[in-house]
Amino acid sequence: MNGPGEFKLLKTCPDTRARAGELTTRHGTVPTPVFMPVASQGTVKTLTPEEVTDIGFNMILANTYHLYLRPGIDIIEESGGLHKYMGWNGAILTDSGGYQVFSLARLRRVSDEGVVFRSHIDGSEHPITPELAVEYQEALGADIIMALDECPAHDESFKKTQIAMNRTHHWAERCLEAHKRSDQALYAIVQGGTSPELRRQSARYLASLDFPGYAIGGLSIGEPKEVTGAIIDETVPHLPEDKPRYLMGVGSPEDILEGVSRGIDMFDSALPTRVARNGALFTRSGRVNIRNAVFSRMKEPLEPGCECYTCRTFSTSYLHHLFNARELLAYRLATIHNLTFISRLMSETRQAIRNNTFNSFKKGFLSGYRTTDERTRIAQKQKWLKSRARNADDPVY
Amino acid sequence: MNGPGEFKLLKTCPDTRARAGELTTRHGTVPTPVFMPVASQGTVKTLTPEEVTDIGFNMILANTYHLYLRPGIDIIEESGGLHKYMGWNGAILTDSGGYQVFSLARLRRVSDEGVVFRSHIDGSEHPITPELAVEYQEALGADIIMALDECPAHDESFKKTQIAMNRTHHWAERCLEAHKRSDQALYAIVQGGTSPELRRQSARYLASLDFPGYAIGGLSIGEPKEVTGAIIDETVPHLPEDKPRYLMGVGSPEDILEGVSRGIDMFDSALPTRVARNGALFTRSGRVNIRNAVFSRMKEPLEPGCECYTCRTFSTSYLHHLFNARELLAYRLATIHNLTFISRLMSETRQAIRNNTFNSFKKGFLSGYRTTDERTRIAQKQKWLKSRARNADDPVY
Repeated sequence: MNGPGEFKLLKTCPDTRARAGELTTRHGTVPTPVFMPVASQGTVKTLTPEEVTDIGFNMILANTYHLYLRPGIDIIEESGGLHKYMGWNGAILTDSGGYQVFSLARLRRVSDEGVVFRSHIDGSEHPITPELAVEYQEALGADIIMALDECPAHDESFKKTQIAMNRTHHWAERCLEAHKRSDQALYAIVQGGTSPELRRQSARYLASLDFPGYAIGGLSIGEPKEVTGAIIDETVPHLPEDKPRYLMGVGSPEDILEGVSRGIDMFDSALPTRVARNGALFTRSGRVNIRNAVFSRMKEPLEPGCECYTCRTFSTSYLHHLFNARELLAYRLATIHNLTFISRLMSETRQAIRNNTFNSFKKGFLSGYRTTDERTRIAQKQKWLKSRARNADDPVY
Repeated sequence: MNGPGEFKLLKTCPDTRARAGELTTRHGTVPTPVFMPVASQGTVKTLTPEEVTDIGFNMILANTYHLYLRPGIDIIEESGGLHKYMGWNGAILTDSGGYQVFSLARLRRVSDEGVVFRSHIDGSEHPITPELAVEYQEALGADIIMALDECPAHDESFKKTQIAMNRTHHWAERCLEAHKRSDQALYAIVQGGTSPELRRQSARYLASLDFPGYAIGGLSIGEPKEVTGAIIDETVPHLPEDKPRYLMGVGSPEDILEGVSRGIDMFDSALPTRVARNGALFTRSGRVNIRNAVFSRMKEPLEPGCECYTCRTFSTSYLHHLFNARELLAYRLATIHNLTFISRLMSETRQAIRNNTFNSFKKGFLSGYRTTDERTRIAQKQKWLKSRARNADDPVY
């Protein structure tokens, strides 16, 4: 039997770097490649824990940054930990807060010691250090926790990206030192921006510290897609074969498949749930906007044959109406559909890897799936990154 | 066996006018007194139809006015009617649109022929007549439909209230004439403002037309509570004993019990679901505001022993956090709790009437239940009525 945090590699794809495996956690075994829905504030937006399970997920991601600010780590700890607090029996990975501190919080001061940041909610000042990040995550009690990292902008200078990388390495060591709970796995985060040289350095250095898992951070934050792919390709060969590799913040169907084929085992992203609330629904042929008038009289479900509650129960016309009328049920039904789509994609991906058919599965999927064109995608992503703090309190956002 | 729309009186209370009965509909038998959750736009806000059923409701109310404007009557008709469109297998009562036209729409022109109103959504002009109200409701296919009425403000002059009442009577006759579907019951609406004389006249006149059910409209729209009670007491004795009596727009626990004791069989109100989204939750001792800091560390459910999903699953602290963080799940969990509270109240009320213990049940409930003081209540209600059109597009509102 594997211990908590152990990773078992079950199969590798003969044509790509794709691999199928199993993560052992205190809260069940998680087959990989796995996608983790995002529950930033201790809830996968709009859904109950039972619904997330029923859709097919057994691991989610929560954010230390958000939970620290609201409701506060102590309240969750007193309640018996995050699993109990949010009523979730599956596995949880908590992000350290590094990414949020660097992208969402305001007026930060960074030093080798750590970061002082201002809350995006009320402007209050808070320190975060590698030791505090571990302390908070131990109190939350997730199955997998992340080291504190510094995540520079994708277009940051080489020099500053290098400084951030070195700091990230130093912080990873301090996290390793501070981490005491043996029932949690602590993962390191590779940084290095868009520099292949820094990424190789970062992967090799962190690999030498023997973490039970490795994340690739600082990608999918506004850089072109071919850069994302190239950087993953530069990084993965320098990570240990027998440890899980986690590509942070990636969650569109096409990006997941690209990541899997490049050797990634774990993904998380708010994208499937965020775009759902915005009316963008995944179908086999690409994303559609349910608000489009073309759907107003469509009696069929959005995707005939889809096993999700939404498609089994309601017409596309009704879903279109709920969005037009801004009914809260709309956001929930769309979230259920998009997460079911991703859950099915992950399950088919794992099956294809086990059957040695991943490459043709991926090609087949992508040939039918119209992706957003690259310029539009980058513009949308950057617009979203900019508007995030401003809109953080809009419940639908 | 009873036909669609038939009402069977099963029991009358020896101490009050309360009564228990059964309504027969094409979509099941509905025990009375019954409360109907409001699904104005074809959805009980935040909930799936299954959740509404699981909570214990088998009859809901939908609004012709809202559904006419969005998605449009023809779309629902093409889809096979409202039950099918919204996936609801229980009974439905549709309001004619009269109340919304007079309270929510803008720049209306009223004549004996009907009303021309402007949509609160886009300002477009639309006519509504008794015949159109029936036509739309026949197309929607509800089990019980309502005659078009004119609902004056509670502080309107006697003269204008009288004119509105006479118009309502005339329109009721035209609705009766226009109504063709034998599988739907058409109810008349008693008007007459706060005048006991007009209310008696209205009840007697409409009773003479032999409708299968009678609503009391134009109450709970800003007048003091003792006036509401007095007007019900003036009206009920003039309505036929063997027909259901429906008090429109009333849904706080205390008002429901007062209504039942005055001989009312049916209630609807958006109040339990609307205040839920605002964080006001029903408990045996009164409404509490879940946003209050006192709840931030409360590990117990909001109401220990409550059988609702929310209380069975989550701590009060978690619910408080979801509200603070404006998480969409908050509004749903609160809605489930408040509707469960009302469902239980109705079920206990019916049981008490059958057991000849209604009066002591009512007294016991009200002695423990702290109600909002009258001035605050009226101020809140009037504020809400005023802000309604402005906020109609806020999804949480």
